[in-house]
Amino acid sequence: MYNLLHELPVDLGERSYPILIGERMLGEYDLSGYVAGSQVMLVTNDVVGPLYLEQARASFRGKSIDAVVLPDGEKHKDWQTLNLIFDALLEKRHTRKTTLVALGGGVVGDMTGFAAASYQRGVPFIQIPTTLLSQVDSSVGGKTGINHPLGKNMIGAFHQPEVVLIDTDTLQTLPPREVSAGLAEVIKYGLIRDIPFLDWLEQSIEQLVACDSKTLAEAIMRSCACKADVVAQDERESGLRATLNLGHTFGHAIETFAGYGNWLHGEAVGTGMVMAAELSAREGFIGPADYDRVVDLVSRANLPVYPPSNMTPADFMNLMAVDKKNVDGRLRLVLLRAIGDAMVTSDASPDNLSATLNAFCRQQS
Amino acid sequence: MYNLLHELPVDLGERSYPILIGERMLGEYDLSGYVAGSQVMLVTNDVVGPLYLEQARASFRGKSIDAVVLPDGEKHKDWQTLNLIFDALLEKRHTRKTTLVALGGGVVGDMTGFAAASYQRGVPFIQIPTTLLSQVDSSVGGKTGINHPLGKNMIGAFHQPEVVLIDTDTLQTLPPREVSAGLAEVIKYGLIRDIPFLDWLEQSIEQLVACDSKTLAEAIMRSCACKADVVAQDERESGLRATLNLGHTFGHAIETFAGYGNWLHGEAVGTGMVMAAELSAREGFIGPADYDRVVDLVSRANLPVYPPSNMTPADFMNLMAVDKKNVDGRLRLVLLRAIGDAMVTSDASPDNLSATLNAFCRQQS
Repeated sequence: MYNLLHELPVDLGERSYPILIGERMLGEYDLSGYVAGSQVMLVTNDVVGPLYLEQARASFRGKSIDAVVLPDGEKHKDWQTLNLIFDALLEKRHTRKTTLVALGGGVVGDMTGFAAASYQRGVPFIQIPTTLLSQVDSSVGGKTGINHPLGKNMIGAFHQPEVVLIDTDTLQTLPPREVSAGLAEVIKYGLIRDIPFLDWLEQSIEQLVACDSKTLAEAIMRSCACKADVVAQDERESGLRATLNLGHTFGHAIETFAGYGNWLHGEAVGTGMVMAAELSAREGFIGPADYDRVVDLVSRANLPVYPPSNMTPADFMNLMAVDKKNVDGRLRLVLLRAIGDAMVTSDASPDNLSATLNAFCRQQS
Repeated sequence: MYNLLHELPVDLGERSYPILIGERMLGEYDLSGYVAGSQVMLVTNDVVGPLYLEQARASFRGKSIDAVVLPDGEKHKDWQTLNLIFDALLEKRHTRKTTLVALGGGVVGDMTGFAAASYQRGVPFIQIPTTLLSQVDSSVGGKTGINHPLGKNMIGAFHQPEVVLIDTDTLQTLPPREVSAGLAEVIKYGLIRDIPFLDWLEQSIEQLVACDSKTLAEAIMRSCACKADVVAQDERESGLRATLNLGHTFGHAIETFAGYGNWLHGEAVGTGMVMAAELSAREGFIGPADYDRVVDLVSRANLPVYPPSNMTPADFMNLMAVDKKNVDGRLRLVLLRAIGDAMVTSDASPDNLSATLNAFCRQQS
């Protein structure tokens, strides 16, 4: 029997939905009440599918269920792979009353969400995230999309799910490197707006790295609550929501440089947060002890604190210039005004930015 | 100097926008007040571009303008061509504050609108439709999208423009066949909800076919007002808006059968309306004289009244089954309850539908 531990509401008016967090949920908890029509298209990948696809089917009692299995990995987050979902929907004659279900990590979630936003100009979808990263980040907030060779997530839509189901049991099959990658986003919430949570993380980081189920459940709940709160205040990212991108501008540059999938998203964000903290110290917002605290926690999560050894400051500048957080050509960054207090700014001194890049790049331009 | 004849408001709350109709508008009328940022990406095709691209640039005073020229035609309304827009946006480093401008017919408008809906999860766009069909139909209402090999407009979004600029001078360079195709949608408005307009069309159809500028301007204004009224009442097509699809279910089947671009959309809709009227007569809603009136007007607009000679009833049934107006497997059709009064129904008798298909197909299954 399932054990529903937390039910978090995400308040978005007409588009509100709940996040359900628990144990033994997949296959035991019946989601058919969240499906308006009779058709369901389960979307997963070739790593998660063999583990959980049959279980997931059992969560949609009385529905007509089809499934499509995508190749795994960020490098497949492209139009060709997205089109496999459209092919399956059309071949199986799914109407505009169908419901799509994303079963997998962030890549499956982002692509399934965008497919749902675009199929026949929009159909509902459900998120069942199976990685720590997607559970604490990409399944909450409605951002969907695919990559373009010239930039990550450049093509997409805002599209909210009907419900998010998080089964902590799926984390037991997750590789340790992916657990660490998920912890980068968990740490981020503490850094940008929740000092008590950051204190708790500094005490709990070893249990989290060791995949202790109870500690992970607590971290997921507090992370989702934090993100849901931010998204409810600023769904379309006009202001506050942009602080969730702490470390992401540096991080996206690293991911693009390394080639999609070679660095995990969370690994790049881990290093990106350390770089953002260092720049925040140069700008005089935080002190050296605060910066050391960031480096310490990111390191204890087994995350990298330096970019790829062959990446130069010029590589960063080129790749950050196309980042979508830029307005009218000015580089927009998320910095820490203090520990637990992030802000978005276009006013970072070019000299300080340059000094930060020089400090982190082992190879100069 | 431009001559602004009509300004129609489309009332969609926060997403309201005006339709501007006039003479000598392109290049003379300044649209820069509708552009929030500094960047503009003009999207056109290789037929319209040589005629109007330079003129269009002059309508965006003081803006930084880039342009991308797509191959012309419905057969290019696909992902590969859509991606040319994304390529141009990213190569020219357009941010999320850019504005896209569609300069061309319905295909350019639908693709540019979907590119705008999807680029960085949504940027604003402006419609400058240059064909009669796009002026009276696809530039109003926010439907955007591309085709899939298994169905038309299967991938897209609802995305409203900031403004629609209609310059009737662009119709003087339009081939006669495309004028007729546009008249199919004009006739549709009379048939579904406006008897006085239908009466006026029966008096004016020869001047319209002959491309008389003043008569065309009147027809465009009344068509846009009609569509704007319907869309304002039902933006997401839950009910009333579906009546705008009169003739489209049969028409889409014809277009798909013929191969995209071989039959013009308006030509297929012309034949589709005649078939829908014939089925409406069989169902006992309209009389033989009403049906003759439809055939007469469509014929006088120089539109076809029979499907391709090698198309069978079975072809229709196969192709209509994937049409997106179907709910849970039942064929949904727009029929005429009376002249000037359309309705959506899933209750058409299968025998009558079959008789209609047999009557129109010169080759049986």
